Amino acid sequence: MYPKDLFPHKEIQELLDLYRPIWALGYAQQLMGWDLETYMPEEGSLARSIASQEISLLIQKLMTDEKFIKALERAEKLEDLNEYERGVVRVLKRDLKFYIRVPPEIVGELSRITSEATIIWRSAKKNNDFNVFKPYLEKIVDLNIKVADYLGYDKNPYDALLDLYEEGLTTDDFQRIVDVLVPGLKKVLDKILSEGYYSKPHPLEEYKYDVEKMKHVNSEILRILGQDPRRLRLDISAHPFTSGLDMRDVRITTRYEGYDFKRTIFSVIHEFGHALYDLQIEERFRATPLSGGASLGVHESQSRFWENIIGRSKEFTEAIYDLLADNLSLRGKYDASEIYRYFNIVRPGLIRVDADEATYNFHIALRFELEKLLINKEIKVDDLPELWNNYMDKYLGVRPKTYSEGVLQDIHWSMGSIGYFPTYTIGTLLAAQISKRMMREIDLFTAIREKKFEPVREWLREKIHRHGSVYPPKELIRRVLGEDLRPEIFVEYLQWKFLKT
Amino acid sequence: MYPKDLFPHKEIQELLDLYRPIWALGYAQQLMGWDLETYMPEEGSLARSIASQEISLLIQKLMTDEKFIKALERAEKLEDLNEYERGVVRVLKRDLKFYIRVPPEIVGELSRITSEATIIWRSAKKNNDFNVFKPYLEKIVDLNIKVADYLGYDKNPYDALLDLYEEGLTTDDFQRIVDVLVPGLKKVLDKILSEGYYSKPHPLEEYKYDVEKMKHVNSEILRILGQDPRRLRLDISAHPFTSGLDMRDVRITTRYEGYDFKRTIFSVIHEFGHALYDLQIEERFRATPLSGGASLGVHESQSRFWENIIGRSKEFTEAIYDLLADNLSLRGKYDASEIYRYFNIVRPGLIRVDADEATYNFHIALRFELEKLLINKEIKVDDLPELWNNYMDKYLGVRPKTYSEGVLQDIHWSMGSIGYFPTYTIGTLLAAQISKRMMREIDLFTAIREKKFEPVREWLREKIHRHGSVYPPKELIRRVLGEDLRPEIFVEYLQWKFLKT
Repeated sequence: MYPKDLFPHKEIQELLDLYRPIWALGYAQQLMGWDLETYMPEEGSLARSIASQEISLLIQKLMTDEKFIKALERAEKLEDLNEYERGVVRVLKRDLKFYIRVPPEIVGELSRITSEATIIWRSAKKNNDFNVFKPYLEKIVDLNIKVADYLGYDKNPYDALLDLYEEGLTTDDFQRIVDVLVPGLKKVLDKILSEGYYSKPHPLEEYKYDVEKMKHVNSEILRILGQDPRRLRLDISAHPFTSGLDMRDVRITTRYEGYDFKRTIFSVIHEFGHALYDLQIEERFRATPLSGGASLGVHESQSRFWENIIGRSKEFTEAIYDLLADNLSLRGKYDASEIYRYFNIVRPGLIRVDADEATYNFHIALRFELEKLLINKEIKVDDLPELWNNYMDKYLGVRPKTYSEGVLQDIHWSMGSIGYFPTYTIGTLLAAQISKRMMREIDLFTAIREKKFEPVREWLREKIHRHGSVYPPKELIRRVLGEDLRPEIFVEYLQWKFLKT
Repeated sequence: MYPKDLFPHKEIQELLDLYRPIWALGYAQQLMGWDLETYMPEEGSLARSIASQEISLLIQKLMTDEKFIKALERAEKLEDLNEYERGVVRVLKRDLKFYIRVPPEIVGELSRITSEATIIWRSAKKNNDFNVFKPYLEKIVDLNIKVADYLGYDKNPYDALLDLYEEGLTTDDFQRIVDVLVPGLKKVLDKILSEGYYSKPHPLEEYKYDVEKMKHVNSEILRILGQDPRRLRLDISAHPFTSGLDMRDVRITTRYEGYDFKRTIFSVIHEFGHALYDLQIEERFRATPLSGGASLGVHESQSRFWENIIGRSKEFTEAIYDLLADNLSLRGKYDASEIYRYFNIVRPGLIRVDADEATYNFHIALRFELEKLLINKEIKVDDLPELWNNYMDKYLGVRPKTYSEGVLQDIHWSMGSIGYFPTYTIGTLLAAQISKRMMREIDLFTAIREKKFEPVREWLREKIHRHGSVYPPKELIRRVLGEDLRPEIFVEYLQWKFLKT
């Protein structure tokens, strides 16, 4: 079943055979997740949450089956594993750690509550009603604290959660990043804002578009970037996301608000970056533990690379100008340089997903601080709205007037994901660092101008994508960059882009 | 978890708890099936077939787990089971019989091959290429013969397959139906055809429609029939079908050819009939073995009832005339009685799904004869195209010129379903018999004229739908009708409708 040249040991082959049904259940879970956000009839949530909980329990049951644990232990003891085989063992040990240490009741409860909470969050956000969501969030925080305790940690319970999403990341690690980044960004942001014109309200932000025409624009942009529609589809959901079912079946979503077209365009380009990673993973890793990416942070570096470095560049704006102008009736009213200004407005705002490159990471720093406090029981869910608003004031000088624009804006907590947000900043920083490295070999901005993305896709495939989960993220980063993550590179990138210094 | 008043015995509660993950896997399989036909990117089929096979194997593993078998045996021995509990035991014994008698390798192989074969069939039909599909069909027939042998049968191996789809149906049973039906229908059909005008080519058959307007018409028709969009959605697929994930999550599909609008309308009404059955099953049967219908034949009676008895009636045609006329620009060109003629053209044709009420069952008789011969090894897959054409000649006096219009027209064999087609005829006959029974209590044609379908839906809920799989089909039919299935009622119905006699 599995390629002998990649996985020569029969112990590994046996392990992979035992893993295959687990993979299939994960695949089914992912499809159910995609469907929940895209096409499921509203009242289907009841049965969906039962099915989803049962399948989570089955995954846990199969992973913690003595036969599986024994097979993993046998494999682990072999001394001459190749790097693919070592990757298999490493990833499965990480997964198993979760299932062995966290009791089935907790996993089941988390699965059940989050399946309901995502539905409740949607209506809470719509109705600006924090109280209806609060009991769900309290339960979710509570369960996450329990999960952290069961998983174990050296210094901080929040470490255990961070590690779930970014292998090896600690609270101290990220605190160091924040401590360099926040003052660095503050300085750049103040400078940009003092220069004035970027932050003015731009008329295109209220400019209405025809949804059908916008769908056409998005599908053309995907074609330009290199979408193969036989492997990648685009749908609509409340919160854009990517679902990588397989290297030949990836689905992304966007939303159409009917105005401020950069929102939908950049969500499409962002998700395309995620999708390309999933699409370019070595095909022979199918149905193995290696078929995912290295980490969420590395995944996010890919979406940010396409969204920010490519999508928000002057060259890309010029390359898609005709497409935009023709479909959105911009010609004669807004030229390419005006569109570029619109794409790169820097303005402290309330909503993370709409934030520009210069303010985005403040939103993450805020969530990092709040999650750290919640998990360390230094604050309660009740305190969140007020604290949220205080941090927004402190970092960006703006204050939400509604819950929907504040604490209710993100889907993540409703999905049970605490410790997830920092991966966004890791990705953002990494994207700048990767593009700097890539430009030693590729004339990136000429490629963008000429809409020739094949060399860019191939560079990413060769250096990052094809490896799947073979290497832990820190090792992969060192292989690609020859150095570790350095937040100051991102600050330099912003200076270069916005201040020409 | 499960209602104590329905399932008072703790042995049954334990059995249902063990069944819940099996239900969840079936739920996931069904969603994957729906997705395969609607939204899955083309190249996703590779991973889908692995996932689908693994999940089938898991279902089999859980059903044949000693713990589950023991729990079923314990439950079976109890003497004071109520009818719900007896239903649970009966349905699970039927399912288990399949899994115990058919070896895992066969089940896995069937799942894998059909997952590929549905894809191949689609392109084979498109390209009129029987040869590319042939090896798949040969394998599928071969596996079905093995399945029949493993399942066991009294007289004919085909009995074992018929029983899979229609509990208790035998080759002899259906032969008796065919033997009454074919001559009866021949007589009625000859009479209808000799009267001439119904069979003339109707200009509306080539009449082009705008797909977007047609989507609106279909969605209005669903609204009129009583669709709750929070529980029932409509999508597009090559072959219309219904996917009943839960009594609150049912999905139907149709197709839009761009001409001959009765095709898409009647597929929507047909699938609505299936959907209504699933939607009206007792909600407290959720995630139990009772949450399906009584049988495929009974299910088909519901789709045929809505499609033929209601949808193709003069009263319904008049009730939706304005909707059709406004959206398809028919006013002044075709009046309601002309639309009724168009909806009820009787003309021997090549395609089963386009067949009218008077010729439809000949298509099934043909498939019954061929399947019987295939499973008894009296013919080979190689012989099918020629034999198919000969039967078409004999029954209906028409002969396919392409494979696509002949042996390749149906998706069913590619899905591994042999023994399935007879359920269509059972459903068609039953629909006429049910409507006759219903009219003792409900003035059906007034209800249709006034577009007041609630009493009709309620009658069906009360008599048929809410019972789910509690009763075996023959028992349910006797409860509803006070008699068994009688093919002559259907012949009488046709005489009444088409010949006014």
